[in-house]
Amino acid sequence: MSDVIRELTRRIAPPSGAMPDAVQRHLDDLTKPPGSLGRLENIAVRLATIVGDPPAKLARRTVFVLAADHGVTARGVSAYPAEVTAQMCLNLAGGGAAVCAFARTVGCDVVVADLGVRYDGPLGGGVLHHRVAHGSADLVDGPALTAEERDAAVAAGAALVEAVETDVVCLGEMGIGNSTSAAALTALLTDGPPEDVVGPGTGVEGNALEAKRAVVRTATERVGPGRPAEEVLAEVGGLEIAGLVGVILAATGKGLPVIVDGFISTAAALVAVGVEATVRDYLFAGHRSAEPGHDRALAHLGLHPVLDLNFRLGEGTGAVLALPVIDAAGAMLRDMATFSGAGVSGRTDGTA
Amino acid sequence: MSDVIRELTRRIAPPSGAMPDAVQRHLDDLTKPPGSLGRLENIAVRLATIVGDPPAKLARRTVFVLAADHGVTARGVSAYPAEVTAQMCLNLAGGGAAVCAFARTVGCDVVVADLGVRYDGPLGGGVLHHRVAHGSADLVDGPALTAEERDAAVAAGAALVEAVETDVVCLGEMGIGNSTSAAALTALLTDGPPEDVVGPGTGVEGNALEAKRAVVRTATERVGPGRPAEEVLAEVGGLEIAGLVGVILAATGKGLPVIVDGFISTAAALVAVGVEATVRDYLFAGHRSAEPGHDRALAHLGLHPVLDLNFRLGEGTGAVLALPVIDAAGAMLRDMATFSGAGVSGRTDGTA
Repeated sequence: MSDVIRELTRRIAPPSGAMPDAVQRHLDDLTKPPGSLGRLENIAVRLATIVGDPPAKLARRTVFVLAADHGVTARGVSAYPAEVTAQMCLNLAGGGAAVCAFARTVGCDVVVADLGVRYDGPLGGGVLHHRVAHGSADLVDGPALTAEERDAAVAAGAALVEAVETDVVCLGEMGIGNSTSAAALTALLTDGPPEDVVGPGTGVEGNALEAKRAVVRTATERVGPGRPAEEVLAEVGGLEIAGLVGVILAATGKGLPVIVDGFISTAAALVAVGVEATVRDYLFAGHRSAEPGHDRALAHLGLHPVLDLNFRLGEGTGAVLALPVIDAAGAMLRDMATFSGAGVSGRTDGTA
Repeated sequence: MSDVIRELTRRIAPPSGAMPDAVQRHLDDLTKPPGSLGRLENIAVRLATIVGDPPAKLARRTVFVLAADHGVTARGVSAYPAEVTAQMCLNLAGGGAAVCAFARTVGCDVVVADLGVRYDGPLGGGVLHHRVAHGSADLVDGPALTAEERDAAVAAGAALVEAVETDVVCLGEMGIGNSTSAAALTALLTDGPPEDVVGPGTGVEGNALEAKRAVVRTATERVGPGRPAEEVLAEVGGLEIAGLVGVILAATGKGLPVIVDGFISTAAALVAVGVEATVRDYLFAGHRSAEPGHDRALAHLGLHPVLDLNFRLGEGTGAVLALPVIDAAGAMLRDMATFSGAGVSGRTDGTA
């Protein structure tokens, strides 16, 4: 394991909040039929396991939107030209992107960082400059990242988390071509056929979609099965994805809940969990992406998405929009009356 | 049609906000791939059709939690004793119920009204006293409500809406036995077999579930198919459900978006749409209930639920928790940059 990644994983401990059984007993004493709030109760148990019961309000919220370019875009795998990555970084930092609009409605800060955009000089305009390289190399021909680039991006992502005070971390990304990288990561880290995980991304179709399938097949054959997660990350990852791995590892090391977004950030979660399995206990899946490989990635992580709105945008949109629901799960434990406290009768059959 | 209901429907006009095609063009110019925010884009179109484009923030939010008892509970169709209705009214008005906890997290006011709780004297404790009767009659033997009781409850619900200033209306209810009433309403108003729409409600099982099935079968046979919605409401409805019909008709008459909650409030929506089809254009389905008949009711209304968290509680919990998502749909149109405005390139193939 690389020194950077070893040091980050060293800080990760199992959740030290409430015991799941105790939270379940608390839930079953609240003034509602047992289990009647469905999956929100599972969310509540997992949240309290991390942050304690009752869970403090997740008052300070931050979405980390990391951006980079991908050498594989030269192969025509994307619906948009590569310069859109740089343009969208400025739009994200300027507050005009979808995730910014959502973040304002839920009181979430947006941190936008350039981990590897192909652009001369810093982007400016409020985009944090942590550029490791001018994009990744083409993952078909050889490793997308050198070990040094990967570690620098992981460290940069971790440093972003260290620099802010927050109660919850949302993952976001921007990078033309990154659904190709995420597809290769997902295929390799979930040990399944690459064809099943290649989808339209932001809207590729026809010949370009066929090209994308061929690229992912070739790349996954080149890398081969059974490789350690950190090596897979260098082989087919991207700088923003490596940065998100750093965000996840650092946030988990701080004991913070982490809300994964769509297909690309879930690929980063696959890497982080592959590096250190304990990470999984801190993760929430914000939403279920329309991208076909996302279900496989979530199943591999054992995560059930909070929202299912057919998003396929990224940027952290699904993670940020899940915040109010996760917040409500905490409020249930924090604010609801108990049967005994409220003088409400239990079931006629005496169960629960 | 009864005078009360005719007067309420007379005020209902088609949505007078933006034209759907114009909203779609606006959405397609926002800095994101067309359609990439999935069902949130459909929500945005429907919202803007009602309140205009860009949609004003839904700043003032109110959930109307209407409560009543049901004569049919004497037949052992419920998991909880009937006195829980009164107890939970006080818990709702006191802020201890689930919907209260959720409402606080999203800045929504909670209005709790007694439309027909079986209790001596007013409940007090902040519960608005609009009691029409001490619960409904047993829907197996004959009509649950007289025409006068139904109209009084509809009028009381409408008056609650008239009394508040709000930008959006959420529906909620509390009434031991009311999933039996809702099942009969759903069976009769969607013309399907009653067996398919009977579920566990708040947790009935075994013999009691069989009793519930038999009750709904007998009641729907007694009423028979093809009856007008307002008659079906009196035959098998409840006072809180009739009150919610009044809430829906009055809110629609004021041009407000209405967020339906689970199985019981959707049954009220079936009645309201049965009375006046235009109502449907103002409705949003907050969530998909675990109750088996809810899918059929939503399909009949042509509504797609915002959340799918396996709730089976009612109170407005699913409606209130959908508010941040609907809010984000509005924020998308209100706050996002356009491709041209932000200097972001379009697709390489020139489409969209």
